Amino acid sequence: MEKGMYFLDQKDMPTHWYNIMADMPGDMPPLLHPGTGKPATVDDAAGLFSRACAEQELNTKDRWIEIPEELMEVYRTWRPTVLHRAYRLEKALDTPAKIFYKYEGTSQAGSHKPNTATAQAYYAKKQGLKGLCTETGAGQWGSALSMGTRFFDIECKVFMVRISFDQKPYRRILMETYGANCVPSPSTETKSGRAMLEKWPDCPGSLGLAISEAIEYMIDHPEYKYSIGSVANHVLLHQTIIGEECRKQMEMADAYPDIIVGNIGGGSNFAGQFFPWIRDKISGEKPDMRIICCEPESCPSVTKGLYEYDFGDSVGLTPLIKMYTLGHGFIPPPIHAGGLRYHGMAPTICHLHRLGFVEAVALPQTAVFEAGVKFARIEGILSGPEPCHNVKVAMDEALKCREAGESKTILIAHSGHGHFDLAAYDAYLTGKLQDYAYPEEEVKKAQLELPKVG
Amino acid sequence: MEKGMYFLDQKDMPTHWYNIMADMPGDMPPLLHPGTGKPATVDDAAGLFSRACAEQELNTKDRWIEIPEELMEVYRTWRPTVLHRAYRLEKALDTPAKIFYKYEGTSQAGSHKPNTATAQAYYAKKQGLKGLCTETGAGQWGSALSMGTRFFDIECKVFMVRISFDQKPYRRILMETYGANCVPSPSTETKSGRAMLEKWPDCPGSLGLAISEAIEYMIDHPEYKYSIGSVANHVLLHQTIIGEECRKQMEMADAYPDIIVGNIGGGSNFAGQFFPWIRDKISGEKPDMRIICCEPESCPSVTKGLYEYDFGDSVGLTPLIKMYTLGHGFIPPPIHAGGLRYHGMAPTICHLHRLGFVEAVALPQTAVFEAGVKFARIEGILSGPEPCHNVKVAMDEALKCREAGESKTILIAHSGHGHFDLAAYDAYLTGKLQDYAYPEEEVKKAQLELPKVG
Repeated sequence: MEKGMYFLDQKDMPTHWYNIMADMPGDMPPLLHPGTGKPATVDDAAGLFSRACAEQELNTKDRWIEIPEELMEVYRTWRPTVLHRAYRLEKALDTPAKIFYKYEGTSQAGSHKPNTATAQAYYAKKQGLKGLCTETGAGQWGSALSMGTRFFDIECKVFMVRISFDQKPYRRILMETYGANCVPSPSTETKSGRAMLEKWPDCPGSLGLAISEAIEYMIDHPEYKYSIGSVANHVLLHQTIIGEECRKQMEMADAYPDIIVGNIGGGSNFAGQFFPWIRDKISGEKPDMRIICCEPESCPSVTKGLYEYDFGDSVGLTPLIKMYTLGHGFIPPPIHAGGLRYHGMAPTICHLHRLGFVEAVALPQTAVFEAGVKFARIEGILSGPEPCHNVKVAMDEALKCREAGESKTILIAHSGHGHFDLAAYDAYLTGKLQDYAYPEEEVKKAQLELPKVG
Repeated sequence: MEKGMYFLDQKDMPTHWYNIMADMPGDMPPLLHPGTGKPATVDDAAGLFSRACAEQELNTKDRWIEIPEELMEVYRTWRPTVLHRAYRLEKALDTPAKIFYKYEGTSQAGSHKPNTATAQAYYAKKQGLKGLCTETGAGQWGSALSMGTRFFDIECKVFMVRISFDQKPYRRILMETYGANCVPSPSTETKSGRAMLEKWPDCPGSLGLAISEAIEYMIDHPEYKYSIGSVANHVLLHQTIIGEECRKQMEMADAYPDIIVGNIGGGSNFAGQFFPWIRDKISGEKPDMRIICCEPESCPSVTKGLYEYDFGDSVGLTPLIKMYTLGHGFIPPPIHAGGLRYHGMAPTICHLHRLGFVEAVALPQTAVFEAGVKFARIEGILSGPEPCHNVKVAMDEALKCREAGESKTILIAHSGHGHFDLAAYDAYLTGKLQDYAYPEEEVKKAQLELPKVG
């Protein structure tokens, strides 16, 4: 009998998050205060986030950060997630490659996002905050924070990118079922939102703009803090439980990945998976391990962006982040992978890419859905549009293994299901799904507005 | 540390289904051939189902039936499912009761249904059939059979009850993503469907009518067999893997259920859970264990039906089944728990109810959704409308434990998620969800048409 799933007993769960900042090679450029242009302090960050998250954001010393027991109790309602061996896919591709996928779609909210949503809600509650406000793209993050805040009995306000709000009404209802308040962005509730609606009444919205609205909402509601679902160091930190679990599960399977593939929007799911592995590459122990970041061709921050300081939001309310950016004013085309419609990227991932530790590839959405439909028919799982990117690249790599007769081990960082994305599958199946070319002119225009630094 | 989830290693998976027919107390009335009125033979059943399923349907001798290894390979893509301990719910209810739930919602199709869908597809493929045709209510069964047939590379035709087809468009798209053909019932593709549409153009449909259409389709396509998602003995047999796994998991938790609650539409999920336990009650070892079947107030087969021979479908194409029935022509009100809109009930469950081994309770849908929203806010899981019934009854029993100061162990048979049922949650949250009274007059009228037997 060959195992198709590797469970990890809760008694063997990782008890600490892995803080890659303690091991980061090279000199990673710091976050800068947008007013002074000086490196951001914990106090600066605590103006945005709960204090515990602000401390984690700037922590470059502690390699391991303990997960509080009260939070572990919550994690134990859905973690550890399962590591799958994709035997059926290997057979269908007739490849000697071994394909694994760590699947986060069995969390209650449907993705990896609750790993940090519950953590952020826990710290907010501990600090005595009344609520958290946030943005959401595809709705995975908003659903997760709605659940997390409800679990710790605080309020939740969500600005949801309008294109996704319209494409995925079920996501809004899910957030409301958890008890959150969710509005489409641009909204009439903030200055940033109203300004955009005046300029462009049908604006599909963007993650960058929704972040601006959420931060503005926080400024207007001092008993709230802002909560972010990706990009920031503390968010990626909370996600490392994925990779730490996966290391133990791959050991159970007597396997080690030659290739790890994951999609990146802000980077949180993939970083959560690959940070715990890349330390073997940083240490020189596994120099040949490949880490492949997948992004949409129409919003290719890493493959086409400039490596510059830029704002995390559209309006310019966040700290300045040194990252690959398409320009904070760029509004990506309305692809279905809403979680990947972001102009920037986690600065840690950008830095590792600059140093050559990770690679990146950009994909058109019809090829991505084609792979998603194949995966559903072979493995049964209906993937979100975001992880469909990884499935596509993993299949391509497995086919290369067939050509070369190589038995590589491929690990897919699978962030969640696509149960709320069926309109997109319908569009694909009926031939109505379109690809969007890289909007070079819009990007160039947006990049003219990069902030001047130093 | 207290475990919130109990995983079962795949090496410890049950290798056999449990055939309760070998242990059934009393004389259970046989299936009758609708034409001759004589007990149905394997050949009769094989006119409807694949031969292997027909044999299982009438097998009263073998207590254990081995699960074929090729099917086990498929089971290992999502099984064993997890047993949860609902610590958060216990705490919220401030009850000394211990609450467990075995959750089938992590299967790729979202429910327990793939346990039998993949089995039926396996046997059909082995027999050389071209495809399977079926009905579906809420869409869980249709999704599962679409996946199962795709896994074994045969065709799939689904007649979906129109009210659910309209309420849950995502279910249709999911079936199509798996490659199935799905049409609303009543359809124009069969005589039964056309006759109903002529009489009642806006007919919301019913499981009974959809079954008639599927059987008619099979008669017109001799290279197809009919596949059913509940009621039949072989279907309930395939589902016993749930309870067999659960016994091992409860042992890991050092617990034994005092009360098991589950919803019944045709009865397959709940029977799959409780058959493996009820043998301890039949044997006299656990005389006080309570097994509570939950059904909708507007379609209360067990609590209000007559115990008579009736057809399983609306038109009269199935064998005659001795069961609690509201009359095969009864069209239940359009409640959201589409999986429970059935006029009859698995004959095994009816027989066990007659003998006093199980009890039944009927619930109105607003109370059921109220419980579902509470459960989502406490445990995070968004339940399908069907298992919301169980959640409601389990909560009530846990509160009784609080009153009495008793620490009973309550086990919920949780059949799956409600990701495609969010329109129903929206209706509840906005106060638009209505209850339907028991339609006594319609039932009386339908029961006038019960077939004459003997």
